[in-house]
Amino acid sequence: MVKTDILIIGAGPTGLFTVFEAGLLKLKCHLIDALPQPGGQCSELYPKKPIYDIPGFPEVLAGDLVDNLMEQIKSFEPGFTLGERAETIDKQEDGSFIVTTNKGTQHHAKVVAIAGGLGSFEPRKPPIPNIANFEDKGVAYMVKDPEVYRNKKVVIAGGGDSALDWSIFLADVASEVTLVHRRNEFRGALDSVDRVKELKDLGKINLITPAEISEVRGNDNGDLEAVLIRKNNEASEEILLEVDHFIPLFGLSPKLGPIANWGLEIEKNAIKVDNTLDYQTNIPGVYAIGDVNTYPGKLKLILCGFHEATLMCQSAFQRIFPDKKYVMKYTTVGGVTGFDGTKKEAPKAVVKAID
Amino acid sequence: MVKTDILIIGAGPTGLFTVFEAGLLKLKCHLIDALPQPGGQCSELYPKKPIYDIPGFPEVLAGDLVDNLMEQIKSFEPGFTLGERAETIDKQEDGSFIVTTNKGTQHHAKVVAIAGGLGSFEPRKPPIPNIANFEDKGVAYMVKDPEVYRNKKVVIAGGGDSALDWSIFLADVASEVTLVHRRNEFRGALDSVDRVKELKDLGKINLITPAEISEVRGNDNGDLEAVLIRKNNEASEEILLEVDHFIPLFGLSPKLGPIANWGLEIEKNAIKVDNTLDYQTNIPGVYAIGDVNTYPGKLKLILCGFHEATLMCQSAFQRIFPDKKYVMKYTTVGGVTGFDGTKKEAPKAVVKAID
Repeated sequence: MVKTDILIIGAGPTGLFTVFEAGLLKLKCHLIDALPQPGGQCSELYPKKPIYDIPGFPEVLAGDLVDNLMEQIKSFEPGFTLGERAETIDKQEDGSFIVTTNKGTQHHAKVVAIAGGLGSFEPRKPPIPNIANFEDKGVAYMVKDPEVYRNKKVVIAGGGDSALDWSIFLADVASEVTLVHRRNEFRGALDSVDRVKELKDLGKINLITPAEISEVRGNDNGDLEAVLIRKNNEASEEILLEVDHFIPLFGLSPKLGPIANWGLEIEKNAIKVDNTLDYQTNIPGVYAIGDVNTYPGKLKLILCGFHEATLMCQSAFQRIFPDKKYVMKYTTVGGVTGFDGTKKEAPKAVVKAID
Repeated sequence: MVKTDILIIGAGPTGLFTVFEAGLLKLKCHLIDALPQPGGQCSELYPKKPIYDIPGFPEVLAGDLVDNLMEQIKSFEPGFTLGERAETIDKQEDGSFIVTTNKGTQHHAKVVAIAGGLGSFEPRKPPIPNIANFEDKGVAYMVKDPEVYRNKKVVIAGGGDSALDWSIFLADVASEVTLVHRRNEFRGALDSVDRVKELKDLGKINLITPAEISEVRGNDNGDLEAVLIRKNNEASEEILLEVDHFIPLFGLSPKLGPIANWGLEIEKNAIKVDNTLDYQTNIPGVYAIGDVNTYPGKLKLILCGFHEATLMCQSAFQRIFPDKKYVMKYTTVGGVTGFDGTKKEAPKAVVKAID
C-alpha cells in the first residue's frame, strides 16, 4: 500500500503545485492520475498551445508549464500512480483515508486533495459492436507506452492532432501503420498534416480515407486479429486488414467519474468547497482544488488553482499536526530544502570590511 | 486629471497583474506608486534575489518577475503615476472616486484597487536635527533620477546594498562621491563590496568609516551646502565636507500611511476584505488585494495576490457594467487582444485534405 501525507487525485498543474506548497511544510505527496503522464489537460490535450494568463509568463506552452512545475517539485520527491483512476475512498477510524484505483492499487493518506480538473478524461469510443471485448487485448484508446507497438501492425483511427501525431511517431516504431479517417480532411497543426502526407508518399503510412472501421475481429485466444475497414461508406468497398493493434483516437471527454459517488456535495458537476477558509469539502480531511471545485465567484483558471492549493496545504498541515504551529517563511529568505537533501537559497549578503 | 476604469494603488506584482486580468475584460488601469519604478518590494528591496514559490518558476529573480509582468501587461497600456503617494480618496455622487497624491495629482476612477503591499515604503531617516529642512533641497532618501547628480558632489550614507550600489553607479556620474558608514564592515553582495574597494583604490569613491553625518548645513537660499562628518565618534575628528547632495540610504520601512485614514476597516495593519467573494473592502467599489489585505487564512504570498486580483476584476467588471454579463474565455482559446491593437493567439488548427 502506498503511504503518504497528502494524496492528490489529479496530476494537472494544480495537483503538481500542491506538492511544492506541501513540501515547504515538510508534507509528502503522492498523485494518482488516469492519464499515463503528469500534466492533466495541459499535457494530454494541448501541450503545444500557448497559455497567456499564467502570472509572470507573457506566453508559455502548456507542456512547458508542466515541465517547469515538475522541475519545481522535483526535490520534494512526489510519488505517482499513473494510468489508474481513483475509484473508492474509505475513511479509517483514525480519520485517515484509503483510496483504491480501478486497478486495485491502494493509497493510505491523512489528507486527500482532489485536484481532478474537469474529471478523469475518458476516451470517446467508436460505436463498433463488441469493441469492449478487445480492450487491453489489442484495442487501446490512448498510447501509454509506444514500445508496445514495436514491429507490430497498427491501425489508428481519427482525424485530429492525436491521430496525426501518433501515426507520425509510430511510423518509425511499428512494422506497419494504417491511418483511417472518415473524411479526407484532417484537422491539426499544419506541419503534422504535411508530415503525414510525406510519410504516406514514402510508403511509411498507409492512408485510407474517407473510411471507418466497421468491425473488429479476434483470434481463438480472444486477441485482436483484424479490422474491417469500410471505404466511402460502401459495403462493397470493405477491406479486411490484419492488425495487432487498433488505436481509435477520437478525443477525450471529461467525466467526474467515481468521485461523484464519494458522498461529496456536488453542484453543476463540481465539488462544493468552503472558500472562506481552506477549500475543504463537506468531508473533513478531503479538499477539492482547481477546476474540480466550485464556490461563489469561482473561476476555472490555473492561477486560481495555485492559490487554492496553497491555502489548502496550510489547513492540511493543521489537520495532520494539530499541536504544531506553522510559521511561514518566505522562500526568498528561507530557501527551499528538498526531501532529497538539496537546498536552494538566495546568496547571503556578506559582511566585510573595506580597508 | 487622470481618468481610468480601475485605479490601482501599488505597482508591485499584484498591482501589475491586475492590469492583465482587467485588460482581458477590456477595463483600463492606471497605477500609483510611491516608489520611482514599478515592481514594489521586488524592484526596490530585492531585485537580484531569487523567489522559489512562484508557480511554474523553479527559480526567478524578483526583478525578472517584474520585467515579465511588465511585458505581460504591455499591450493593455497601463498608465503610471510614480514617485507619488496616494493621499486622499473622495467618493463622487455617481459612486466613482477621486484619489489625490501627495504631489496633488488627481485620478478619477470607477473602481479603486488597493494593492499596496506592506504599505508605502517610507525611507528611514537619520536622526540629524533640521534634516527635514533640506529635503528636495539637496537631501533625498532614494535615487529617483541619477542624472540629477551628474557632475555634482554627492555624499551617501549607509552600509547596505543600496549604499554600495549607488556609490558604484554614481562614481561614474557625479564629480565626487563620498561614502560614509558608521562601521568599517559593509553588508551586501560580495561583488558590490569588492567593487567599492576597487573604486576606493582608484580614487573614485572617497570612503570614510567608521563615521556618521552629524550635521547638515545650508546656504542663504536654503539649499544644502555642506555636511559635518564625525569620525570614530570623536568630536575632535569632525570633517566639514562641501557637497551638493546628501543621500542617506538607511533602508525603507513599510507604513500603511494615509490609506489608514480612508475609513477602511483595518486589522493588524492590513485592510479587511470579503474573501468569500471578491476581496472588496467595507467601502463598496474599493478593493484590497495582495499583502495589504487580511481575511481568515490569509497568506502574504505573491501567488495569492494574483488570484485575488483575478477575482476582484470580475467584481469590478460587474460594478462598472451592471447590465453586462461577462463570459470567460480561456486565453488559450480566445487569445489576448491588446488595447494597442496587437493580438496574441494560439496557431489555429488547419483543416486540410491529404491526397
